[in-house]
Amino acid sequence: MLTNPRADRVKAVRALSRRSSRERAGRFVAEGPQSVREAVRYAPADVVDLYADPAAATRHADLLAEARAHGIRVHPASSDVLAAMTETPTHQGLLAVCHIPGPGPDPLGEILASGPRVLAFLTHVRDPGNAGTVIRAADAAGVDAVLLSEGSVDVHAPKVVRSTAGSLFHLPVVTGLPVPATLDRLRDHGIHTLAADGAGSTLLPDADLRGPHAWVFGNEAWGLPPEVRARCDDVVRVPILGRAESLNLATAATVCLYASSGVGVVTSSPGSSVQFPGD
Amino acid sequence: MLTNPRADRVKAVRALSRRSSRERAGRFVAEGPQSVREAVRYAPADVVDLYADPAAATRHADLLAEARAHGIRVHPASSDVLAAMTETPTHQGLLAVCHIPGPGPDPLGEILASGPRVLAFLTHVRDPGNAGTVIRAADAAGVDAVLLSEGSVDVHAPKVVRSTAGSLFHLPVVTGLPVPATLDRLRDHGIHTLAADGAGSTLLPDADLRGPHAWVFGNEAWGLPPEVRARCDDVVRVPILGRAESLNLATAATVCLYASSGVGVVTSSPGSSVQFPGD
Repeated sequence: MLTNPRADRVKAVRALSRRSSRERAGRFVAEGPQSVREAVRYAPADVVDLYADPAAATRHADLLAEARAHGIRVHPASSDVLAAMTETPTHQGLLAVCHIPGPGPDPLGEILASGPRVLAFLTHVRDPGNAGTVIRAADAAGVDAVLLSEGSVDVHAPKVVRSTAGSLFHLPVVTGLPVPATLDRLRDHGIHTLAADGAGSTLLPDADLRGPHAWVFGNEAWGLPPEVRARCDDVVRVPILGRAESLNLATAATVCLYASSGVGVVTSSPGSSVQFPGD
Repeated sequence: MLTNPRADRVKAVRALSRRSSRERAGRFVAEGPQSVREAVRYAPADVVDLYADPAAATRHADLLAEARAHGIRVHPASSDVLAAMTETPTHQGLLAVCHIPGPGPDPLGEILASGPRVLAFLTHVRDPGNAGTVIRAADAAGVDAVLLSEGSVDVHAPKVVRSTAGSLFHLPVVTGLPVPATLDRLRDHGIHTLAADGAGSTLLPDADLRGPHAWVFGNEAWGLPPEVRARCDDVVRVPILGRAESLNLATAATVCLYASSGVGVVTSSPGSSVQFPGD
């Protein structure tokens, strides 16, 4: 049982809350039962070490057994050690150190080759909670992969990982993509690119979501620059019925992605006669 | 021009970041151009004082003129004073101190008398960002009023006000409501109560959203307790297509509220033949 909160091993885990340490070590941390469970279930080969305090070891005995069956090293640790390893004030007694999966030579190419129906492309998204929430919503809406542009938040930052609630381990996430070249490449592969923007001329219920398409979302504060909107096939806005100026990034993205899900939660109705304020 | 960041007046504004001070003073703070603009436009009688640093006074001269035309006192202040008044690290040079509107003898009764079509009822919601985001989404989706139960976050906390992006001034928000009595009262007024819960047996596209109805949302961590779900007319879940366990509160609420908006972004299709994972 690890009991010394000042041990080097503990400090090394704690250091992974910094981007520079993550890049140097090639590792990141998943905290709490939900994230750890999804890591063990969907990416066991990437889980390097699992730490559990006595209470969590009892409560999540099945999960620890599953981890051991995958050959993952499970380390009993005191609650103080768990607290020293994480940046959250109230840790939940479970923490996994995971490999940052090395991207193949062309991760976007792999996704395009798989014939995706819906993609989400986050460009210059900076807020960790927003990025994580969109990855979670993309998973829930059945999106095939999430792309992030260069200049976006690091998806392995603790707050992003937490906000994804395990979805980071569920679907492919490709990072560091240049915006114009990626939009061109999507189009070359027959994927319709839809910029989501409050300035869009097409209302969401009128957008053509039948074929393969990629939603393009901008920064939470300044949105999508005109040159990016111009490079997309269409610019689509979520209808606003009240006096709000807009939705925030995560909620707007969720409405768009559910519109694409085809579950009947959103209809694509070209020629809809519904009238919106401002029309 | 106010230039002393340690002046009593500055400390008094800063103190409004604490709930006890807000309750004692009956005032709260709206920060930044968007919130201040919506306060001046939609609740000018509640704006007590407006503070602007030189840069903001130049950039938002129209807004300050509009405020003065409403009889609002506009105080020039240094950027240091603005920084000392607010808890945000990067203030935007504008801040309004507003009256917390005194509720009438029966605020829920007033809303029921107005014949609402869609209501959102947040029960025991604790996270300020979630609460504010739902109020903003409710505004965008054309919801008639937002209700909050007793035991929920204070809607006048700075982080809630910021997250509403001005929507706090756009639609009626009633707070401190007891959950069971409020559900009963909604039903007595012919308002269908729909619990939003991942354990719901009715899928969102199959929910009956035609008549007046109220969405009931639970705490971000533990959801809705069984006795609250049992007291609602229906328990509805947002379809999950991928491997995610759920959506977070704000995104799930947004999908539900847009389903109710009738803009064609979500269809109500009883008897839909679409199949969902888990069906």
